[in-house]
Amino acid sequence: MTPLDTHAMAAARARQAQLVKPPGSLGRLEELAIWLAGVTGDELPEVNARVVVAAADHGVAAEGVSAYPAEVTAQMLATFLACGGAVSVLAREVGADLVCVDAGVAADTSKLDVVHTGLGPSVNLAQRPALSDRDVERAVDAGRSLAANAADDGVTVLVGGEMGIGNTTPATCLACWLTHGAPAELAGPGTGLDAEGVRHKAAVVERALALHQPTDPFDALARLGGGEIAVLTGLALGAGEHGLGYVCDGLIATAGAAIATAIAPDLQPRLLAGHRSPEPAHTRLLAHLDLEPVLDLEMRLGEASGAVAALAVLRLAAAAHRGMMTFDEAGVSS
Amino acid sequence: MTPLDTHAMAAARARQAQLVKPPGSLGRLEELAIWLAGVTGDELPEVNARVVVAAADHGVAAEGVSAYPAEVTAQMLATFLACGGAVSVLAREVGADLVCVDAGVAADTSKLDVVHTGLGPSVNLAQRPALSDRDVERAVDAGRSLAANAADDGVTVLVGGEMGIGNTTPATCLACWLTHGAPAELAGPGTGLDAEGVRHKAAVVERALALHQPTDPFDALARLGGGEIAVLTGLALGAGEHGLGYVCDGLIATAGAAIATAIAPDLQPRLLAGHRSPEPAHTRLLAHLDLEPVLDLEMRLGEASGAVAALAVLRLAAAAHRGMMTFDEAGVSS
Repeated sequence: MTPLDTHAMAAARARQAQLVKPPGSLGRLEELAIWLAGVTGDELPEVNARVVVAAADHGVAAEGVSAYPAEVTAQMLATFLACGGAVSVLAREVGADLVCVDAGVAADTSKLDVVHTGLGPSVNLAQRPALSDRDVERAVDAGRSLAANAADDGVTVLVGGEMGIGNTTPATCLACWLTHGAPAELAGPGTGLDAEGVRHKAAVVERALALHQPTDPFDALARLGGGEIAVLTGLALGAGEHGLGYVCDGLIATAGAAIATAIAPDLQPRLLAGHRSPEPAHTRLLAHLDLEPVLDLEMRLGEASGAVAALAVLRLAAAAHRGMMTFDEAGVSS
Repeated sequence: MTPLDTHAMAAARARQAQLVKPPGSLGRLEELAIWLAGVTGDELPEVNARVVVAAADHGVAAEGVSAYPAEVTAQMLATFLACGGAVSVLAREVGADLVCVDAGVAADTSKLDVVHTGLGPSVNLAQRPALSDRDVERAVDAGRSLAANAADDGVTVLVGGEMGIGNTTPATCLACWLTHGAPAELAGPGTGLDAEGVRHKAAVVERALALHQPTDPFDALARLGGGEIAVLTGLALGAGEHGLGYVCDGLIATAGAAIATAIAPDLQPRLLAGHRSPEPAHTRLLAHLDLEPVLDLEMRLGEASGAVAALAVLRLAAAAHRGMMTFDEAGVSS
């Protein structure tokens, strides 16, 4: 993992102290600018963002853990490409480009303009391991390659998001495994389960955790994960390897980043939490990762939508940092 | 006060239910889009924003209630016009235009491209009323005219902000008067007082409240207010009169809006709280107005900076509302 550039951070911190405002008065915007300087190694950093949305289907959907049918995964992938999904519109609005990945969608995506990983849907993790070790390796490698490509293209900040009917269940399994949490405490409504649905989901998670005893983070991805989560683990690792910032979205994307951090703890300083999801497992993972979200807008959509909204704030932070005058330049008494 | 357009709101709510996402999953972004529809009377509303920053000096600065000298007010006004202040950069970044107002700056601003109100600095409110009744009328009228001009120019959302060394003291006085709050509980550090400074400020507020017993909101502006606060009261009233949305910034701007709402309670639905200031009097005023801020980024600069940051989120809400496909358009199973 590339460490943050402490030199650039010190220079950015010194600049913030000279900008024409009381010290610290831009609050989180100041911290974000300094973080971005550390991430990019540039004391006057720019937000050049790419959003990667990985989509996959899940065998565990057969357990009735989602309010939506599995065919929606492929339909939404096509909608993202047609610029009709929330993430499509939000990414365009904040000036980020969007890359979609088939990380194991059940339908044929060969005619869609997506990154093809060759992965199939996961197996029902309440009965067997979700992915083979070979699939995990393939997915993580795909994510790392996407980060390498982004670095080549001059991207400074990567955002990971996902689409996958049923995928809060594997993400909650991983959150329980990583944080030793109880399924009944960490299971949430996902896209819209009622209280009975949440209890059922918690029971499925409980059953999966009893069935599988992962030996390490890669084994956890195989037993309890899914294709898009493993791609996002690779994407976060790749962001760390190639010196990018990585903005976590909600529960599923953050679970991928948390597994990446379990593999490579030095990744943590490159992570930014974009938005606090109402899913209890997300708050648990954020505490586990020691991250404080930029936004809390009660969003619970996934697709990277919360993280992309946070990009708007990150852009403001960078703009103020670059564009404001210093006390000297402005001729203001300090 | 123009009421919100409930027809446009119902149409916008119906559209949100058809957009290709689980119902409610965009959280606050959905509420903001529906609010904006009500404000504009357009079920597919656009954010066309103008930021008005009113600046004034305060006799009460002589009591040592600020960490900065009074000359900074005029220097900062010039900095805003030179595009070097935080609000200048942030407004440009979110595509809002910026209007600066001399609402009683001690220095000569005749050569600056600002709106001139003819007001002078306020008098030390710890000793006498801050403004004459005539000055209050002039300031409120100036704010209302600015809102009328904005409506003529096609603006849909107004943002009020301020600059004025010492102005958290009058704003805290007004917050105490409006909410029956205790100065020791509501006084905060402003731009950077230490604990002793805050205690001193609370004592000055206590003294002012003991000296003045305002009979109505206009009288409160005269006795305990200041030029920029009165202009912002007028601006908020004008937003209500001309069917605009009004985004409140921190303590001072929100005090102006709270006085406006005391004058015209029907204004409340047109108000949006942009950002939660760490000043305790701000949280008290937000509760008084029944407003929940969009952002909490620990900003404490004023200048409309927190409200302008919230405009970035409002733009995202409007873009998602307008740009996303419906389930039918996307061919997604709902």
